[in-house]
Amino acid sequence: MSEDSRPRVEVCFTPRSYELYNEDVDIVVCIDVLRATSAICTAFEYGVKKMIPVATLEEAIEYRQKGFIVAAERKGQIVEGFELGNSPRRYLDGEFDGKTIVITTTNGTKAIHTARKAQTVVIGSLLNLDALSEWLIKQERNVMLLGSGWKETFCLEDTICAGAFVDQLQQSGGFRSEFDSTIAAKYLYLSAKDNYFGYLKASSHRRRLKALNLNEDIKFCLTPNQTSVIPILRNGVLEKL
Amino acid sequence: MSEDSRPRVEVCFTPRSYELYNEDVDIVVCIDVLRATSAICTAFEYGVKKMIPVATLEEAIEYRQKGFIVAAERKGQIVEGFELGNSPRRYLDGEFDGKTIVITTTNGTKAIHTARKAQTVVIGSLLNLDALSEWLIKQERNVMLLGSGWKETFCLEDTICAGAFVDQLQQSGGFRSEFDSTIAAKYLYLSAKDNYFGYLKASSHRRRLKALNLNEDIKFCLTPNQTSVIPILRNGVLEKL
Repeated sequence: MSEDSRPRVEVCFTPRSYELYNEDVDIVVCIDVLRATSAICTAFEYGVKKMIPVATLEEAIEYRQKGFIVAAERKGQIVEGFELGNSPRRYLDGEFDGKTIVITTTNGTKAIHTARKAQTVVIGSLLNLDALSEWLIKQERNVMLLGSGWKETFCLEDTICAGAFVDQLQQSGGFRSEFDSTIAAKYLYLSAKDNYFGYLKASSHRRRLKALNLNEDIKFCLTPNQTSVIPILRNGVLEKL
Repeated sequence: MSEDSRPRVEVCFTPRSYELYNEDVDIVVCIDVLRATSAICTAFEYGVKKMIPVATLEEAIEYRQKGFIVAAERKGQIVEGFELGNSPRRYLDGEFDGKTIVITTTNGTKAIHTARKAQTVVIGSLLNLDALSEWLIKQERNVMLLGSGWKETFCLEDTICAGAFVDQLQQSGGFRSEFDSTIAAKYLYLSAKDNYFGYLKASSHRRRLKALNLNEDIKFCLTPNQTSVIPILRNGVLEKL
């Protein structure tokens, strides 16, 4: 339809739709704002050396038995028997400096698992928005922003974060977009950006976390540009780029 | 999570996600703004008596061989050998008054096919927005607004139309919503409603139809409240309610 040869930036709302949007994608940015990818960015900012994302609790238990530190969250809560969940604020005191942490969460690690065969997989959140956008612009390759969703359904905060990346990449002039999901994500971002917290007031995930007294976590995850780390997946392990 | 006993109104973006959003749904509103459900509403407004939606071209050909009038569209164009596509404006001169028409389209009839086992299936578009909203409010039952999408991917114009219905139902005070897709559809509607045509300028479907010189059809489909008909599916056949 177009002879525009610029690379594409597109949004895929959930892992469930991955293969519909996956054609010619070079770099997948996995996004789970509340809270997995926010926690991963924060962990690296505060000294964590490696993170091993696993999709199932069974794998997490195996790693724990081998002596690994394991972060395991389901439905917003730390899984019984594990020492960490996915609160990003748990990493702020530097306790895990230099450590390797295994992580499994309700939605975020499934997105990483879905994208694992892509050429390049990086971790995005509002926390590393500017740094990661700048890096993506320099790559000049096709980018997919992959939301994690909530149990396979569409999720507002991941979409808004994806829209924030789309906005920066498009503003660079170096990218084109074809899918309506990309247009919608950008529109939603533009109407949310002046007050993420208020905009998400009615969202299902905010209500869910608020009921668990996690409002402080939500505010933290919705505060952009707290770090310039770019976690990247290499041979199944996340490291700082 | 809530003791609110009001019925729900929710949005499901595409047939692909139907079963994720289908729990306890009583009424499904199938939406394909460009252009299948706009054409169906217009056909009934201009006298068509029955429409038989079929999912495949094979079924359409069988009906044609039996002597039925068949509307068949794929990728925006009339399928070779058929007399009608899915332009709503084709019905305006009343030529098909009193007739039965078989219809198959790229996306819209697949949404109807997906929803066919729901208790009640009705046809929505911007063309019957107020009339159908009023009827849905009176039913006091759980409503799903089902977009058709484009080849299984998210589609902006169906979502905006779904958001317009959500807005009316929520404003009645008689409905609650849980899913983020519903919030997003309403937000997108609110920012689009003053200028649908401009808002959809970049949308993939508008570009696609514009390339086929179908701008007049687009404008027609984006003009709300041209009819009060409510097409309803009964034993696989669409009739006026």
